[in-house]
Amino acid sequence: MTFECEFPVRFGEIDQAGVVYYPRFFHIFHMAFEEWFGALGATYADLVVRDNIGFPSVKVETEFLKPLRYGDRARVCLELEEIGRKSITCRYTMYRMPGDVEAARARITTVAIDNDTFKSITIPDEWRERLQRFKDAA
Amino acid sequence: MTFECEFPVRFGEIDQAGVVYYPRFFHIFHMAFEEWFGALGATYADLVVRDNIGFPSVKVETEFLKPLRYGDRARVCLELEEIGRKSITCRYTMYRMPGDVEAARARITTVAIDNDTFKSITIPDEWRERLQRFKDAA
Amino acid sequence: MTFECEFPVRFGEIDQAGVVYYPRFFHIFHMAFEEWFGALGATYADLVVRDNIGFPSVKVETEFLKPLRYGDRARVCLELEEIGRKSITCRYTMYRMPGDVEAARARITTVAIDNDTFKSITIPDEWRERLQRFKDAA
Amino acid sequence: MTFECEFPVRFGEIDQAGVVYYPRFFHIFHMAFEEWFGALGATYADLVVRDNIGFPSVKVETEFLKPLRYGDRARVCLELEEIGRKSITCRYTMYRMPGDVEAARARITTVAIDNDTFKSITIPDEWRERLQRFKDAA
Repeated sequence: MTFECEFPVRFGEIDQAGVVYYPRFFHIFHMAFEEWFGALGATYADLVVRDNIGFPSVKVETEFLKPLRYGDRARVCLELEEIGRKSITCRYTMYRMPGDVEAARARITTVAIDNDTFKSITIPDEWRERLQRFKDAA
Repeated sequence: MTFECEFPVRFGEIDQAGVVYYPRFFHIFHMAFEEWFGALGATYADLVVRDNIGFPSVKVETEFLKPLRYGDRARVCLELEEIGRKSITCRYTMYRMPGDVEAARARITTVAIDNDTFKSITIPDEWRERLQRFKDAA
Repeated sequence: MTFECEFPVRFGEIDQAGVVYYPRFFHIFHMAFEEWFGALGATYADLVVRDNIGFPSVKVETEFLKPLRYGDRARVCLELEEIGRKSITCRYTMYRMPGDVEAARARITTVAIDNDTFKSITIPDEWRERLQRFKDAA
Repeated sequence: MTFECEFPVRFGEIDQAGVVYYPRFFHIFHMAFEEWFGALGATYADLVVRDNIGFPSVKVETEFLKPLRYGDRARVCLELEEIGRKSITCRYTMYRMPGDVEAARARITTVAIDNDTFKSITIPDEWRERLQRFKDAA
């Protein structure tokens, strides 16, 4: 299954070159990641605050294809590529709207950790099931 | 006494209008506030992490006089205007460098809190003395 | 008339104290300002990119009443307090959701400028009418 | 040759997990990239503003090894891995200070463009020589 969401480019996200500052793309991907939890039947705050689990990024591969400008919107498609014992890997594709032009692609691996110790943990069953359900949905 | 520090304008701090995005001015003031603790013979991490005290801003008055562009630097002068029982008020003046043109002025009141309860507290004596020493220095 | 919009607190907007970093409040106010243009029958990109007009903030007064945490949402109410010849003054009230607790108040004056020269200009009639229509609407 | 610089972790760079928000690592890498131009005998503003050349990132590979917390500093080592006709690839290693613990590694390819057309260009000789001189220096 693919989760989709859309964010307007903000006035303050533009850099000296007149396009979205590239570190902001990772913020946009992270916002999509947060929104995605709604599609899992939960919130990211449930994971992080209630269950005290972290999901820091450990590996990030990205290609930037087209710039985004003020007035554009970023449509982000998130796919769950892999569910490991302790980590998940998501694929993100960002489209520049209007026009639906592919603007960026990323593959981001995040590891489940105990927020207190910052040590990796096995993804708890409750969350694994949510993730699997999303992955399996047509 | 006046504490001074300087920050280069960063590529990613520019907005669609080609100047430093105004919310970034408050980030720059906050960086100056953090640096200022060095002049108190401590670090802001000592206050926040070791002593578990917060200093959230409760009142902010600002005037923006001139824009900053990429290639400029922001020279910030911080003066401690007032030390209350639970709060302090600092005055910030930002100069655009080169040229030393006054670019912004701010008056920011921050209240001492217990970081766990987020309730205001009397500024501990150790910190009050540091603040007073700074204020009294010629 | 009052314009309202709502923004979720983002994971990356939290600071070392566990609450929304105060300069981010100004980013949230600016996002509300951008969204508000929809209620004027235009976009902020129309003003800035198409019409080459800027609206930099020149005066900002703010009171911070309550912190926002991860999982909260910021509901922002924007009122147009005054339309001057070259400037407008907006009032912002931010409520912490859920609970509708007043979290911050701001009064921000922005001046119309020519984006090329950065000199102030009289607000063009087309925009003045949009602003007046919003102000007069019940 | 390796270029080194160091940045304190800022109060506002921390996220809900109590560590530097990972998109900020890319901002820190970009600040190192900007600082690096000093070692080339120029400024990034010379390139971007005076010469109207852009250097957007087109490919980014990153591994995050250790978190940074408030009170830490980020020491960044930048190496110029490759100078192509139109692009350069830099390697970044971030060390957490104190302790000199490797915290992140990145490999970032940036392409020279004409800022007006956003089309890729051959790196001008003047800049190519600066880059080569840096790469060849012991």
